Amino acid sequence: MSFPKPISTIAFDADDTLWVNQPHYDEVEDNFAALLSAYLSREAVSHGLYEADVRNLPIFGYGAKAFMLSMIETAIALTDGRISGKEIQRIIEMGKEMLSRPVQLLDGVRHVLDSLEEDYALMVLTKGDLLDQESKIARSGLGRYFQTVEIVSEKKPETYRKILDRHGLQPDEFVMIGNSLRSDILPALEIGACAIHIPADSTWAHEQVSEANVTDKNFLKLDNICQVLDHFETPIRHS
Amino acid sequence: MSFPKPISTIAFDADDTLWVNQPHYDEVEDNFAALLSAYLSREAVSHGLYEADVRNLPIFGYGAKAFMLSMIETAIALTDGRISGKEIQRIIEMGKEMLSRPVQLLDGVRHVLDSLEEDYALMVLTKGDLLDQESKIARSGLGRYFQTVEIVSEKKPETYRKILDRHGLQPDEFVMIGNSLRSDILPALEIGACAIHIPADSTWAHEQVSEANVTDKNFLKLDNICQVLDHFETPIRHS
Repeated sequence: MSFPKPISTIAFDADDTLWVNQPHYDEVEDNFAALLSAYLSREAVSHGLYEADVRNLPIFGYGAKAFMLSMIETAIALTDGRISGKEIQRIIEMGKEMLSRPVQLLDGVRHVLDSLEEDYALMVLTKGDLLDQESKIARSGLGRYFQTVEIVSEKKPETYRKILDRHGLQPDEFVMIGNSLRSDILPALEIGACAIHIPADSTWAHEQVSEANVTDKNFLKLDNICQVLDHFETPIRHS
Repeated sequence: MSFPKPISTIAFDADDTLWVNQPHYDEVEDNFAALLSAYLSREAVSHGLYEADVRNLPIFGYGAKAFMLSMIETAIALTDGRISGKEIQRIIEMGKEMLSRPVQLLDGVRHVLDSLEEDYALMVLTKGDLLDQESKIARSGLGRYFQTVEIVSEKKPETYRKILDRHGLQPDEFVMIGNSLRSDILPALEIGACAIHIPADSTWAHEQVSEANVTDKNFLKLDNICQVLDHFETPIRHS
């Protein structure tokens, strides 16, 4: 399968597509569980945190601040309020540290962007916290590749429709690349766009959906981002 | 002073320009201070919270989640960690309640939008938390008036420049209306756009700047949003 023109715009998800993200959350969750180990088992902490994260999504949205608040709520609830102020401050410090970590690009990302930037309009299309995502784009050093950065609160079919409308694009001119079937792939396919799924090593449970039924002709699943170049009509510049 | 065409686009700040916002923060701060009144004076709480808010701005940005995290940090720091888990949960509940309050439009807003919508492209241009602002626009019932909603992490001159570029607008085609000299007025004037300042009853200390020097020919200060209609060439429909 190849994507001939008229594809004009290639949109990339950011977290766990361009750079490492979920492993940072997993690591903070490990440290959070360690902090609560005097009170609770690892499993009880993970279960409680996941419940709080999902319960708070409609009001807090995605991102590190929401995650911090859900950790604090979980810690208070699971310890029956016995958690100390100093331990809660430690949770906030973990979140702040995560928010200012260096951005670690995934292998091959820069090469792929270098190869595509002359022939396609490149876009970042990511959900999450506005300042957090802007800060990661800045720290990633990738900002110059992207003509457009779209940060949205949720990736639904109408989100994609609006963004295509805003840029005067037809669905067959647009391809979405990302690690989440739920957010990057299914809604893009639903509006008739193309979508490339590149699973990440670690995906948040809430983003996981069954992929058994994805048989759309506009759908492609790849093992890594470098393989994207095999599917576009562009002179591939080997680095 | 009147704004003749070529003004094509009128952008409105949201919080404390279209609807009540700062009074909600002030009220939560009052309740927060009451919660800590066994430990500290009102003044000490307000001073500590403001310090935390401003210190955390570069990493947390604007909005209710940042405010909640700063309240929690302040409570822990000012009580030397003696604050209880249940009291911290109470702070989170205050923030959640604020995030889901009905949106209270400021007087005259709907009439002004009704009067302008046929002759101008209307925009919301607000900083803050992405999901929080989207949710307020939805709850306000004003969404249909606006061709564009721009939610940004900070309002600097380059923010305005980028937004004008994105919409193919020249500065003299654009007017920004808002309550904050620092965020809505000065950066818009700096790029050569027009700006209308409508002070709110309550403004966060961090947004306050001296207005002694604003003598720009593109600047206008009004007492309330209804007066906006006196300065545009449009048939005013009296409601």
